Amino acid sequence: MAKQPVLTPRADDFPRWYQDVLQKAQLAENGPVRGTMVIRPYGYSIWERMQAEVDERIKACGAENAYFPLFIPQSYLEREAEHVEGFSPELAVVTIAGGKDLEEPVVVRPTSETVIGEFMAKWVQSYRDLPLLLNQWANVVRWELRPRLFLRTSEFLWQEGHTAHAGQADARAYAVRIHHEVYEDFMVNVLALPVVVGMKTARERFAGADNTMTLEAMMGDGKALQMATSHELGQNFARAFGIEFLDDSGTQRTAWTTSWGSSTRMVGGLIMAHGDDDGLRVPPRLAPIQAVVLVVRDEGDVVARCGALTDQLRAAGIRVQLDARADVSMGRRATDWELKGVPVRLEVGPRDLADGVATLVRRVVSKAGAGGAGGEERKQPVALVDVVTAVADELDRQQAALLAEATERRESHTVDVTTLDDAREAAGSGWARIAWDTVGPEGEAELAQASVSVRCLLRADGSLPESDDEPGLTAVVARSY
Amino acid sequence: MAKQPVLTPRADDFPRWYQDVLQKAQLAENGPVRGTMVIRPYGYSIWERMQAEVDERIKACGAENAYFPLFIPQSYLEREAEHVEGFSPELAVVTIAGGKDLEEPVVVRPTSETVIGEFMAKWVQSYRDLPLLLNQWANVVRWELRPRLFLRTSEFLWQEGHTAHAGQADARAYAVRIHHEVYEDFMVNVLALPVVVGMKTARERFAGADNTMTLEAMMGDGKALQMATSHELGQNFARAFGIEFLDDSGTQRTAWTTSWGSSTRMVGGLIMAHGDDDGLRVPPRLAPIQAVVLVVRDEGDVVARCGALTDQLRAAGIRVQLDARADVSMGRRATDWELKGVPVRLEVGPRDLADGVATLVRRVVSKAGAGGAGGEERKQPVALVDVVTAVADELDRQQAALLAEATERRESHTVDVTTLDDAREAAGSGWARIAWDTVGPEGEAELAQASVSVRCLLRADGSLPESDDEPGLTAVVARSY
Repeated sequence: MAKQPVLTPRADDFPRWYQDVLQKAQLAENGPVRGTMVIRPYGYSIWERMQAEVDERIKACGAENAYFPLFIPQSYLEREAEHVEGFSPELAVVTIAGGKDLEEPVVVRPTSETVIGEFMAKWVQSYRDLPLLLNQWANVVRWELRPRLFLRTSEFLWQEGHTAHAGQADARAYAVRIHHEVYEDFMVNVLALPVVVGMKTARERFAGADNTMTLEAMMGDGKALQMATSHELGQNFARAFGIEFLDDSGTQRTAWTTSWGSSTRMVGGLIMAHGDDDGLRVPPRLAPIQAVVLVVRDEGDVVARCGALTDQLRAAGIRVQLDARADVSMGRRATDWELKGVPVRLEVGPRDLADGVATLVRRVVSKAGAGGAGGEERKQPVALVDVVTAVADELDRQQAALLAEATERRESHTVDVTTLDDAREAAGSGWARIAWDTVGPEGEAELAQASVSVRCLLRADGSLPESDDEPGLTAVVARSY
Repeated sequence: MAKQPVLTPRADDFPRWYQDVLQKAQLAENGPVRGTMVIRPYGYSIWERMQAEVDERIKACGAENAYFPLFIPQSYLEREAEHVEGFSPELAVVTIAGGKDLEEPVVVRPTSETVIGEFMAKWVQSYRDLPLLLNQWANVVRWELRPRLFLRTSEFLWQEGHTAHAGQADARAYAVRIHHEVYEDFMVNVLALPVVVGMKTARERFAGADNTMTLEAMMGDGKALQMATSHELGQNFARAFGIEFLDDSGTQRTAWTTSWGSSTRMVGGLIMAHGDDDGLRVPPRLAPIQAVVLVVRDEGDVVARCGALTDQLRAAGIRVQLDARADVSMGRRATDWELKGVPVRLEVGPRDLADGVATLVRRVVSKAGAGGAGGEERKQPVALVDVVTAVADELDRQQAALLAEATERRESHTVDVTTLDDAREAAGSGWARIAWDTVGPEGEAELAQASVSVRCLLRADGSLPESDDEPGLTAVVARSY
């Protein structure tokens, strides 16, 4: 049965393919107000899984969730000069409320550093109140002139962590810890994305930060996507908002703060990093639906036995769904589940049951040689008595295969170069590694003319630098979303 | 050790007591913009538990989570006449975004019926697409002139369900199902609140609804609080937004929609219904912290053994926290945990360990006779070998005791009356039941002069009416928040 192409092939038009996946897999649509987004149930179920995994890791690092208001007095944003400059062109402002013009217009939060700074100043009195480790799940608004669903929308959903510490070293250590233990761990081990963890240049830093750390992933078209960031805010916000404490010797001191965030943009990264010409491919550990049991034909006790199989898989901890829509063609249903990127399909018909088997169909088929394996068939009969083990093993295999494939792509599309010209050239199809000394702020500005940016700075051994002044740093250069 | 009163006693000034609890238990504070709220970590952890319990029940009823934009074109709200009238005085409007005046100002959502109606119209084509069962967790904004934390705030957090159905009976059945299986079940069995489930009068109905169902709980001062509502929207929104489908005979028909919501207001209800003069009392099934293990003195291996005890309780599925702050006085720590309403404290010192016991301190002590029990001591030694069972049993007991106590209060503060004067009088300290025929819309308007309202209508047997025209209905009359 030859399949009609449901999506624009990636090689023909990658942005069009992305839009097609969003629509056909029923992930999201444009909202009625420019730049806003409707996240449909399947797209939202992926976001809920991301939230659960990230939230668990944040709590394990000791931060507590709280909620701060959507509306921020305009004056708050103006207290930290760099911050207001960074955000003023993107702000949405409420000027009318309760049927009247407001005396002081209020800003719809673009991020909550300022309002949280104000409350930290109230709550922190003594060194005993530190560190103060807060996180918030919320919507934020940054008006977008060139919106793209999940990647850049005027409203998006995110978590923003905000912490206050007694000293710079403690603040830095916590931001680094979050960066590795929350973001990197989640992205590598759940999203199956081999992110590069590095430091932003001064040009790319968050408005008001002394240091911004990033995690960059390579998309299917070789561009980079910033998946999350963590910031050392130094004493900039603490000074602006008066976050002060008495240390153990009774001296009044100014705190050090951090912030760190990840957003619905990760859904866009997931699609663009793992998707193929048949649609989305969701890593099993993330997948809201890991397996689907398909009733091939509604004959005899097939539906009942498929229901029992579904229950058996669910009892084994597998996130499984029954598809008993026997009135819809198998081809159409198979296409739908492939579009949605569900890792495993179990097709079960009357003949399969008579033979004591189900047909396991894998969404991710390893290419020969990838990950050291010899390549697999797309479909494979599995004895019903072994189904739970077979599905569990297949989920593990696909998790590893997606990470291996993404790692292989990143490696094969990254080149080491020594000149700005070669870096610009390489960024046409992938990433370039180049000595930061060769680039510098001037080279960075020059690359920007060609829409190429320094994604991050790394040490020679690939680790995270402490400062952009360190000698021998490598810049990762690419086009980006 | 006589305790100083930490809170204004409820009998002296109930609203002041409520504010004191919010502050001393670190639940919430006023935000910088009038009417907004900062939910502190402990308050938010209670909300997260509410969300988890409500979300699980919503999913069990087949609805799926999605996310719709915060910003709604003003024109959407105007399409359903009653709806716009209901909300216009409360709207917050964004007129400036991205540094420019907007051509069409956008409203910050007060609720999402209109935007969801617009998308349902796109997604629903055939009877096969129905029912369409959606839910959203989000923040909404309704400008408040007399804000009170958790009860009425300009921004609040909630879930709003929105469904479309092929027929009126199916729509009604689903709204009723949500009302009972999600809200009533959660409130009675988790919040330990004996809610009255009834129908709103035309005067109290949601703007745009044909029928509003409510759950009303009695607070500690005898007033009523509307804890959640479910609405039959008839075809009002479906007509305004064109939600139409082809039925199985190929005829184009208009859908029937429902909506239903519960919010952070439930946190306010929890505090006011169960709180006492020592602070909050959280029902164990809801409690984010069910038990706390208190290190009495940091001597020898006390901290280590308390840690092990904490792990043992956690392994048994109890939400437990270790309090090893031996440098803070026991009295102060005991007061803190009581303010926060944690059901069980286990106090453990060196002498206790030597004796093989811990001291179990209960937050909820049954009064003699309440719930049929003979009353308990507040503190009780428990053998360490029996600790897990003792704590688990105590949690069950307190869950039942809180429900019994709230039920007893509601019964003893509700009177049957036959005249409006008596109803008004009774509403000074509790609720009145009166024949709806005696009240009617005129009597309702008269009661409103004295800030007394018809909270809901019930059948004689206490069940939910289908219409306010049914003969023999009883009105529950009270003051309310």
